[in-house]
Amino acid sequence: MRAIVHDGARTYFTTDHPEPKLEAGEALVKVTLAALCNTDREVMAGYSPGFNNVMGHEFVGIVAAVADSTDQAAASLVGKRVVGEINLSCFSTDCPYCSTGRSTQCPERTVAGIHGRDGCFADYLALPTRLLHVIPDSLPDDVAIYAEPLAAALRITELSHISPDQPIALVGDGRLAYMIAQVIALTGAPLTVFGLSEDKLALFEPFAVDTQLVKQAAQTNDIHGYEVVIDATGHPSGLTTALSLVRSGGLLVMKSTYASSVEINMSEVVVRELTIRGNRCGPFAPALRYLDRGMIHLPSAEVFNPADFQEAFKSEAFKTVLDFS
Amino acid sequence: MRAIVHDGARTYFTTDHPEPKLEAGEALVKVTLAALCNTDREVMAGYSPGFNNVMGHEFVGIVAAVADSTDQAAASLVGKRVVGEINLSCFSTDCPYCSTGRSTQCPERTVAGIHGRDGCFADYLALPTRLLHVIPDSLPDDVAIYAEPLAAALRITELSHISPDQPIALVGDGRLAYMIAQVIALTGAPLTVFGLSEDKLALFEPFAVDTQLVKQAAQTNDIHGYEVVIDATGHPSGLTTALSLVRSGGLLVMKSTYASSVEINMSEVVVRELTIRGNRCGPFAPALRYLDRGMIHLPSAEVFNPADFQEAFKSEAFKTVLDFS
Repeated sequence: MRAIVHDGARTYFTTDHPEPKLEAGEALVKVTLAALCNTDREVMAGYSPGFNNVMGHEFVGIVAAVADSTDQAAASLVGKRVVGEINLSCFSTDCPYCSTGRSTQCPERTVAGIHGRDGCFADYLALPTRLLHVIPDSLPDDVAIYAEPLAAALRITELSHISPDQPIALVGDGRLAYMIAQVIALTGAPLTVFGLSEDKLALFEPFAVDTQLVKQAAQTNDIHGYEVVIDATGHPSGLTTALSLVRSGGLLVMKSTYASSVEINMSEVVVRELTIRGNRCGPFAPALRYLDRGMIHLPSAEVFNPADFQEAFKSEAFKTVLDFS
Repeated sequence: MRAIVHDGARTYFTTDHPEPKLEAGEALVKVTLAALCNTDREVMAGYSPGFNNVMGHEFVGIVAAVADSTDQAAASLVGKRVVGEINLSCFSTDCPYCSTGRSTQCPERTVAGIHGRDGCFADYLALPTRLLHVIPDSLPDDVAIYAEPLAAALRITELSHISPDQPIALVGDGRLAYMIAQVIALTGAPLTVFGLSEDKLALFEPFAVDTQLVKQAAQTNDIHGYEVVIDATGHPSGLTTALSLVRSGGLLVMKSTYASSVEINMSEVVVRELTIRGNRCGPFAPALRYLDRGMIHLPSAEVFNPADFQEAFKSEAFKTVLDFS
């Protein structure tokens, strides 16, 4: 089958990668669309030590087969369009993570396309059926492909109560921020978006009560003006901006990952009684509900042939998709 | 009256400091006992810019007079033994802090003995009556003096739910840690205390399921073993230890303040979905209830004459008290 593989040193496209073999509880998914994001760029750059696998972790596909066809629930998936979560955790009742609703933190897990497990930049992908979510019939593939990044944004409201009358600031004007802005706007809370680019900020106007350039933040009465501040900049400077914007006693939600560590005045965190909460992957089911109900505005994706993956990785489109259909 | 004053440059004892004049809503408190802590040492060292006041913020006293004796609630305080909170906030309904239960974060506030307001190292102290808490008759002065540090420990359970079946780690074996350990033990949760001194750790054994030297932590299966980790070390290294002990998805409570900033791997916070929550001053009423019911074990204090304050500041006793009675 076709596949885009990173072998630890280089990334290549091949047409004769072996198809995945199913383990108990797994389904074979024929990939239709696969999306690429910055995490894939990081995998290409060597972010995941020991990675020698098919890349990719965002997909839409059709279940082609299941390992155990006598399992009625599993068998009923065959032929269905699905999206899928990517953390293959131990799901043991002894695991302090899997037994407490935190299977995405299981230390024994592999992560499809990211850590020790083949991903979705291929014709076929094997995943446990428990990680698959059936796509509503009315939801087209090119919208369902947004389920994973939208789920990541929904992790914010899954972990933290966003009251509809609290002033919220979002620092960042990129793709993840665009999803987050819409999730926050749906709570009814007044959202101000701080970014680096006036052009990008203009895209947020339908969801925000205000948009501002980050450099203006230091000069305004926005200092300590927000109950919740979300950092989605992907850059260490986002923390500094977020700390300046958040009210004492407020919540700072961190969505940014980056290679370097960052300096923080922890005494300010103590004295101002701040809460800093990191979060990452989120729930697919509400993401599919939002998408199916047309509640999320989505720019159209740029579509590439998988063989042209290197060109795709250079794309600066809002969403870049490899078409495996 | 007698007073210990820090004038920005030096700290001195005087016998002829003017008595405080009462503003509307205030009470005049005759100080009986005043306790000193590290914050006072920081004020002496210049921590509070512009401070030119009577020092001290932990006290037991007797209400000698109130500004408005026609106010029945205020007048009923006269003759009562009291402890008092120290944040003199604006208490305006327009203030985003005072109107939302966070008056200790009011940006307009002064703080008795710490920031812009006379404290309790004196024969008399003026405080708004709303900040005073009447001491139960059965509770002696030398126990009630622990209300403030115990309240600081209770801020943890005020802000965060500590489930009684979660493994908890406390990093630090000092005075505040000793109060925190007892507050956590009262939740029923299994507590492990990590410290630097075997002698100090021995004091924690009645409240802990285990005590360990910090250097052992790196070698044990305590790594990522605790749902909640509390840093009360007062040192930047406490954060590093706490991060190594806390489970993914867990809570890290910061009680440490220190002058320097600290490096943190914020991507770890995001990927491991950690929550870092700073907190500081706490509620006096439950502290008095705990003390009155004999639920807190307290080492006895070392008592000094106020004129000997410099000797008192050198004391390494668990609690050091100036006797103004």
